[in-house]
Amino acid sequence: MINPALGVCYYPEHWSEEVWEQDAARMAEVGIAFVRIGEFAWSKLEPTPGYLQFDWIIRSMDVLGRHGLKVIFCTPTATPPRWMVDKHPDMLAVDANGRQKGFGSRRHYDFSHLGYREESARITQLLADAVASHPALGGWQTDNEYGCHGTTYSYSPAAKVGFQRWLAEKYGTVEALNEAWGNVFWSMEYNRFDQVELPNLLVCEPAPAHDLDYRRYASDQVAAFNKVQYDILKAKRPDLPVIHNFMGRYTEFDHYDVAKSLDVAAWDAYPIGHLAVSTEPEEVKRQYLRQGEPDYQAFHHDLYRTVGHGRWWIMEQQPGPVNWADFNPDPLPGMARLWAWEAFAHGAEVVSYFRWRQAPFAQEQMHAGLLRPDSEPAPAYHEALQVAQELKSIGITGAASKGRVGLVYDYQSEWAWDVQPQAKGFTHGAHVRALYAAFRRHGLDIDILPPSTTSFAGYDIIAIPALFAWNDELRTAISEFDGHLLIGPRSGSKTQNFAIPPRLAPDLPSNLLDLKVLRIDSIDPSLEIEVKGSGSVHHWRERIETKANVVIEDTEGWPVLVNQGKLYYLGGTGTKALVHRVVDYLIAEADLVTLNLPAGVRCRTRDGLRVYVNYNAGPATLTLAHDETGYVLGTAEIPAAGVTIARLATAG
Amino acid sequence: MINPALGVCYYPEHWSEEVWEQDAARMAEVGIAFVRIGEFAWSKLEPTPGYLQFDWIIRSMDVLGRHGLKVIFCTPTATPPRWMVDKHPDMLAVDANGRQKGFGSRRHYDFSHLGYREESARITQLLADAVASHPALGGWQTDNEYGCHGTTYSYSPAAKVGFQRWLAEKYGTVEALNEAWGNVFWSMEYNRFDQVELPNLLVCEPAPAHDLDYRRYASDQVAAFNKVQYDILKAKRPDLPVIHNFMGRYTEFDHYDVAKSLDVAAWDAYPIGHLAVSTEPEEVKRQYLRQGEPDYQAFHHDLYRTVGHGRWWIMEQQPGPVNWADFNPDPLPGMARLWAWEAFAHGAEVVSYFRWRQAPFAQEQMHAGLLRPDSEPAPAYHEALQVAQELKSIGITGAASKGRVGLVYDYQSEWAWDVQPQAKGFTHGAHVRALYAAFRRHGLDIDILPPSTTSFAGYDIIAIPALFAWNDELRTAISEFDGHLLIGPRSGSKTQNFAIPPRLAPDLPSNLLDLKVLRIDSIDPSLEIEVKGSGSVHHWRERIETKANVVIEDTEGWPVLVNQGKLYYLGGTGTKALVHRVVDYLIAEADLVTLNLPAGVRCRTRDGLRVYVNYNAGPATLTLAHDETGYVLGTAEIPAAGVTIARLATAG
Amino acid sequence: MINPALGVCYYPEHWSEEVWEQDAARMAEVGIAFVRIGEFAWSKLEPTPGYLQFDWIIRSMDVLGRHGLKVIFCTPTATPPRWMVDKHPDMLAVDANGRQKGFGSRRHYDFSHLGYREESARITQLLADAVASHPALGGWQTDNEYGCHGTTYSYSPAAKVGFQRWLAEKYGTVEALNEAWGNVFWSMEYNRFDQVELPNLLVCEPAPAHDLDYRRYASDQVAAFNKVQYDILKAKRPDLPVIHNFMGRYTEFDHYDVAKSLDVAAWDAYPIGHLAVSTEPEEVKRQYLRQGEPDYQAFHHDLYRTVGHGRWWIMEQQPGPVNWADFNPDPLPGMARLWAWEAFAHGAEVVSYFRWRQAPFAQEQMHAGLLRPDSEPAPAYHEALQVAQELKSIGITGAASKGRVGLVYDYQSEWAWDVQPQAKGFTHGAHVRALYAAFRRHGLDIDILPPSTTSFAGYDIIAIPALFAWNDELRTAISEFDGHLLIGPRSGSKTQNFAIPPRLAPDLPSNLLDLKVLRIDSIDPSLEIEVKGSGSVHHWRERIETKANVVIEDTEGWPVLVNQGKLYYLGGTGTKALVHRVVDYLIAEADLVTLNLPAGVRCRTRDGLRVYVNYNAGPATLTLAHDETGYVLGTAEIPAAGVTIARLATAG
Ligand SMILES: [Zn+2]
Ligand SMILES: [Zn+2]
Ligand SMILES: [Zn+2]
Repeated sequence: MINPALGVCYYPEHWSEEVWEQDAARMAEVGIAFVRIGEFAWSKLEPTPGYLQFDWIIRSMDVLGRHGLKVIFCTPTATPPRWMVDKHPDMLAVDANGRQKGFGSRRHYDFSHLGYREESARITQLLADAVASHPALGGWQTDNEYGCHGTTYSYSPAAKVGFQRWLAEKYGTVEALNEAWGNVFWSMEYNRFDQVELPNLLVCEPAPAHDLDYRRYASDQVAAFNKVQYDILKAKRPDLPVIHNFMGRYTEFDHYDVAKSLDVAAWDAYPIGHLAVSTEPEEVKRQYLRQGEPDYQAFHHDLYRTVGHGRWWIMEQQPGPVNWADFNPDPLPGMARLWAWEAFAHGAEVVSYFRWRQAPFAQEQMHAGLLRPDSEPAPAYHEALQVAQELKSIGITGAASKGRVGLVYDYQSEWAWDVQPQAKGFTHGAHVRALYAAFRRHGLDIDILPPSTTSFAGYDIIAIPALFAWNDELRTAISEFDGHLLIGPRSGSKTQNFAIPPRLAPDLPSNLLDLKVLRIDSIDPSLEIEVKGSGSVHHWRERIETKANVVIEDTEGWPVLVNQGKLYYLGGTGTKALVHRVVDYLIAEADLVTLNLPAGVRCRTRDGLRVYVNYNAGPATLTLAHDETGYVLGTAEIPAAGVTIARLATAG
Repeated sequence: MINPALGVCYYPEHWSEEVWEQDAARMAEVGIAFVRIGEFAWSKLEPTPGYLQFDWIIRSMDVLGRHGLKVIFCTPTATPPRWMVDKHPDMLAVDANGRQKGFGSRRHYDFSHLGYREESARITQLLADAVASHPALGGWQTDNEYGCHGTTYSYSPAAKVGFQRWLAEKYGTVEALNEAWGNVFWSMEYNRFDQVELPNLLVCEPAPAHDLDYRRYASDQVAAFNKVQYDILKAKRPDLPVIHNFMGRYTEFDHYDVAKSLDVAAWDAYPIGHLAVSTEPEEVKRQYLRQGEPDYQAFHHDLYRTVGHGRWWIMEQQPGPVNWADFNPDPLPGMARLWAWEAFAHGAEVVSYFRWRQAPFAQEQMHAGLLRPDSEPAPAYHEALQVAQELKSIGITGAASKGRVGLVYDYQSEWAWDVQPQAKGFTHGAHVRALYAAFRRHGLDIDILPPSTTSFAGYDIIAIPALFAWNDELRTAISEFDGHLLIGPRSGSKTQNFAIPPRLAPDLPSNLLDLKVLRIDSIDPSLEIEVKGSGSVHHWRERIETKANVVIEDTEGWPVLVNQGKLYYLGGTGTKALVHRVVDYLIAEADLVTLNLPAGVRCRTRDGLRVYVNYNAGPATLTLAHDETGYVLGTAEIPAAGVTIARLATAG
Repeated sequence: MINPALGVCYYPEHWSEEVWEQDAARMAEVGIAFVRIGEFAWSKLEPTPGYLQFDWIIRSMDVLGRHGLKVIFCTPTATPPRWMVDKHPDMLAVDANGRQKGFGSRRHYDFSHLGYREESARITQLLADAVASHPALGGWQTDNEYGCHGTTYSYSPAAKVGFQRWLAEKYGTVEALNEAWGNVFWSMEYNRFDQVELPNLLVCEPAPAHDLDYRRYASDQVAAFNKVQYDILKAKRPDLPVIHNFMGRYTEFDHYDVAKSLDVAAWDAYPIGHLAVSTEPEEVKRQYLRQGEPDYQAFHHDLYRTVGHGRWWIMEQQPGPVNWADFNPDPLPGMARLWAWEAFAHGAEVVSYFRWRQAPFAQEQMHAGLLRPDSEPAPAYHEALQVAQELKSIGITGAASKGRVGLVYDYQSEWAWDVQPQAKGFTHGAHVRALYAAFRRHGLDIDILPPSTTSFAGYDIIAIPALFAWNDELRTAISEFDGHLLIGPRSGSKTQNFAIPPRLAPDLPSNLLDLKVLRIDSIDPSLEIEVKGSGSVHHWRERIETKANVVIEDTEGWPVLVNQGKLYYLGGTGTKALVHRVVDYLIAEADLVTLNLPAGVRCRTRDGLRVYVNYNAGPATLTLAHDETGYVLGTAEIPAAGVTIARLATAG
């Protein structure tokens, strides 16, 4: 565990060696502690096969080290050089339309290609041997943004053979596979594993279990690829963290699984770009155009804290306008500071800005840095400096507080509903995030929990929405939990083989919940069915038969929220008003103390402090909470894009 | 001709053999008479090449037969097993983008592949030999839903060779082909038939005659594929009907042609799913969200009655929510009964629900059945039971009444305007359906007529909208008709070779109609040009020169409706208001007696009965018509999704 | 230079030889002077390889010549016959998705294919030899509409080899290429030129310099293809003009470059179709549905006058409804005359209607001609006759007047912002056209200037918006110009290698303009930021640091328009109101005299005449201008689609 610190992403190979010294000196001046290098440098490290050129990168580490900076050294495997493609022409991935994706940008490799996996091990080992003992070395990053640009899935010959092998191992016999996938349905039965096809370019959709297994397979390849590097790096320096920089709202592989071979989870936070490409309503996009959506970052902070076994970083923090959304607005002054503070409040060890200097050439030339292309400070330079000074003056050492509320988030459920939405746009993540926002608006600390959780002990409220299938761990955790538990909609509606369970959804023993989902009323989300009292259901509505207590029912008399003891079941997708009503009801039942936050203001507690951030474009006024003794940074008058930190009476 | 009866689709291979008996008993209890089996069972019937396993399906027929059920036995050719693709790798179809569509779902075969056509004959013969004499056998179904998932068209090597052969046979010399297609236009002339390309992946659009001939060729392959099975089945049991289950609003092959080798036309009716994927306006989609569009089913009933030479079934009737539209709402209670009754009113022999039990696995697991996956009755179970009892108590034996109005519907015209809309979205079918709805709102019985009709005798009104080209039969029928005849817009605007006829559209002798369409004003359908009196034209507007009588003209002075005796010509696409005005005018001129139907209520007469169905979500009130003696089912107060049946004074 | 005359496009091979005589006689009656033939006739000229059939086309020239008509003879290379594809199977282009585009329409060749380039030279030479001395010959057209249907870019093996060769020639060493493209960025460095890939089917976007070089390469191939034909034709008849018919708003190759091997630039003007497929707002599309956008034609007239070194034609003029937009409305009566007069006012030598007779067959059968398919006159026949008579009575001999305003238009800037819009939809052309319309509404004559301009002498105002990079010529022209000069937004923001210039945009010496663009605020164009005074910026907004004088600033205090002497810089994309304000300000500063034009009316001066055209669907009233002595055609009351011509006191 590292005390909160700043970092920056640096590409010494992009600049003439003369400026390294001055760059390092200025980084130190800003108060930066960690510098990430090496990420895309393979063609400079090995310009032709076997011809290694490591001197320059070691010299850059020397320079950085002289200024007290610690280096995060990246394996360069996200960008194999051109000669690698000559050596392994079949290492290129193939998209769902059957087109091979060529060299000329990045991530041009197939996770299923074992030859490239060996090349990745080779360069990792060589680099580890070369730099592991360097005094400036502070940690490792594996590859870069696994899966970016849709690269988790490939439909190549390598992927086909790999998938067949994986299935043979999983099922043992082809009869077992036919049974698991329901292949009898349309004479889809295989006689041998080597007949199994990838689930692309079919006449209509594949069997959902086929599609889901393919996604499990693809996810496993990412994990296997990462593990190769992890094992090499860890063997070399057991004391240093191995990190990977994940992305936001990216779900194509199981991050919990990949992180089994990581010490720290990092993610790359681009709040404004991510809002732009999101499905948020137009009014939210306009309201937070220059700030990002207020719960988006926090959700990922909490997610990656769990993915990283409690340890997490931001490896790339947006410092100004980016280059990759349709429109790339200038952030509100102060946001580069706010985003960093919010991350620290959620437990980040390091917030590393991407990048040091804006590159005047190549694909990302319109992406801001802390420096402009002419080496003058960009606005974020000054904001980073301010954060570094504030960190020093406040002195945080502890971890993020444990949440009062736990939300189960599950990658397989993301895949399952992508395979079979039944109501277009139905996703697991949207349900988790809607609950996240509804709890968080009351100032409650939240934890994200993996589907491998075996105990919910210590939480007041647990919610498990839109989970596709139970596993043994969750069944145990649920049955032993004595807090308030919210389940549904659609949770437990499938078996692990993507079939409807024999006792129908939510597939719980009747002593826990005596309820069956008979069928689904799937409708366009703009059509709302009012609920008695207030709020509406829309998009997904379950026809429920139950002996449990009906708490809320819709105006057509169908149950919406029912409870059996402290177990609650929600039988549809609620509008925002209904989700708030359900969450407020649960909070009241669980007797939780909440905060009264102004709109657009959010908070999180860490190490006896409560950090408030104001996502609004105008000021807001805080009220000192019952458990706060006063402010250690800022005041109750929190300006646009401002940060205020309160000290708690009792450490959190 | 079979008296009205219910059926159900059943897949014995999906269930363990122990439950067959109970399933059959419950089917009989519901009042079901026909059970369709075998459709997708090839991999269970022939698990490896030549290794036949027919015992189980014969045992299932034994069980069903013991309960008095008749079996509709399907050829399993819509789902060739995986080993078939090993045997004939080139049997897979290729889409318009040049991508081969692989194994893993269904309909993975190319109609042009003669090797697969032989395999289809082989399995058909083997099955016919095995089950033809089974006492439970009641009929046959060929394949399943020809063309579903866009499988009529393929751009494979097999299709190319087949098309070239077909052209050589049609044209004799390549010079004749060049002349027919107008290949001189862009130096598109061929020297030999084996140079002819398929009309996909060109730089811009192909010659329209090229495209149209390709569609004729593709349609012929479907007909040829079906005929192979028909001839085998018919030879075996001349007494039993051979049926194919067509689809709704599917136009890619000529159904009249395919049905030349069928005894009964069936179609698969999914009213709610079809409305969801239709181009109906948003308000219609919302109004009939849980019912389906009120004229959609009836149009297809009337169409398939003609396709089936007077004999038709619903082979698959939606029983509850389906799985394949973007959103899949729960039907209004009563719709599974209403849809069946409407079909019987239009002359259906059998309405067969799809499916008996909801499958908990594979692609259609979210598709409802009469039973839930846990074998408990779903709502449609009770509605089917009610229909069966009502059928028994009313006792219908006669056929649907002949219509007063005939509408010509032509598949080639669908292809022609798809090839060359000139105004985006212009279709033949939309014009036919708009007239259909306008006549039907007055309670008039309508027949759909093929373009091969040689006489319109017995009809009061005939309409021929948007017909691309005349043929000899229709020219004869028109010139000899003494009723009221409505032609246009765009009718007769092309020759059979897709060229503008020398005397221009509508290409009729001036003694019939002295009128020329000089050019077209093609505009966005949202732009309306008002017509004097009331209504508007939009989308398609013809610049007409005529010596005939102008009945209606637009506010810019161009003729819209003209007549020469009893022949009327409509020179544009009317808004709904204008179509109603034109139809009302024709009805008045033809002195037809009409009914006064509440909005959302429809009716049809059969065998001395008039069946009213209420597509509204609320009740409506009927008025006893002059020719009705009283109600034999229901009353004048017809509830939401209700059915009322009146007896006619004189048999219809 | 040819005095204003009419022409028509004719395809003798489409009609039986008997009608040629009557067609020619009627053309002469209409007053047509030029007839374009041969364009798509290759399969009739060389039906099989080497078997030449030129007699018929010479006979057609004999017929036309007898009626005093001059022939524009086209090379038929846009439509190679089917046998050519047998001979050169790899001559077919490949699209960005990797799909080869086959035979069956037109333009099925790859500009990079050197074998086809030789075939093009061969047929050009053979035809030139055969017809060069024919007395009716009046000029040549090379090919037809280069680039139509997206054919400039191909991703074929031929294109790849050609691109690699082109790069080797441009850069000399692969190190220079790596440096120019910034390939170090993502290890994209090449070891050899034969490793370079085309910029399609990559994992994400290519380096912008890579993409831009590919577009330069592709443009060069079009120029090289054209030059081969030009050199042959010019050698044969140095006295006759060689012409190519370009298209509207088509930017995929550099027209200035291609026209280095042309004597006259022609373009194909389809005002209504082009408005339909444009991105104009819906209300503009509706207002000018039957006329075309009022500044669209004029902009292209002025552009092609410059492309053609002062000499330009309309080779294809829309005469009525066309066939290729989604909707193809009938033009307002009079438009076929108005469009011709507007072209002559902008200096056209010839306006040639496409086509003589509407073809009843093949792809363009719904495209109007001067004659209907039944050979009767269509409306445009009479309008052309009227224009011919008016031309004779007025007698124009001089050229279009030199403009007071010059606008720099640059194809590379179109490519650059297509490669890297940064704000979706940002284009060079939209900025040029917005300024064009804002100046033209005041009745000012405008010239379009190429980026190779070395002097702006003689202009009152020059504008250079959204120019991606300076070159030496423009730097010279700017520094020596003593008129009013408007630059920006985004001008000079890149180097020729697509990198940010070291001193940042607009990259001008501070003695000219002391200003830096620090970063970009890129926003959805529907979001407007108000500007103090009036107007707004939207879409693109620059964060400017400057010591120059701020003329206009936005309500957030950022500079929008600044000036340093007579050099003005515009730091954002203005709304229409702001563009008008900026232009009006410049006009006032430059003391230009303007006209007071009614809305929808436009004008241009030529040879002492000012031609007014009324694009409105209703009449308008002109005011006699200070410099006009009276009207020589029409009056101050100008009807819908009308033309009025005033004589100037002093020749223009
Ligand atoms: Zn990154
Ligand atoms: Zn079906
Ligand atoms: Zn053309």
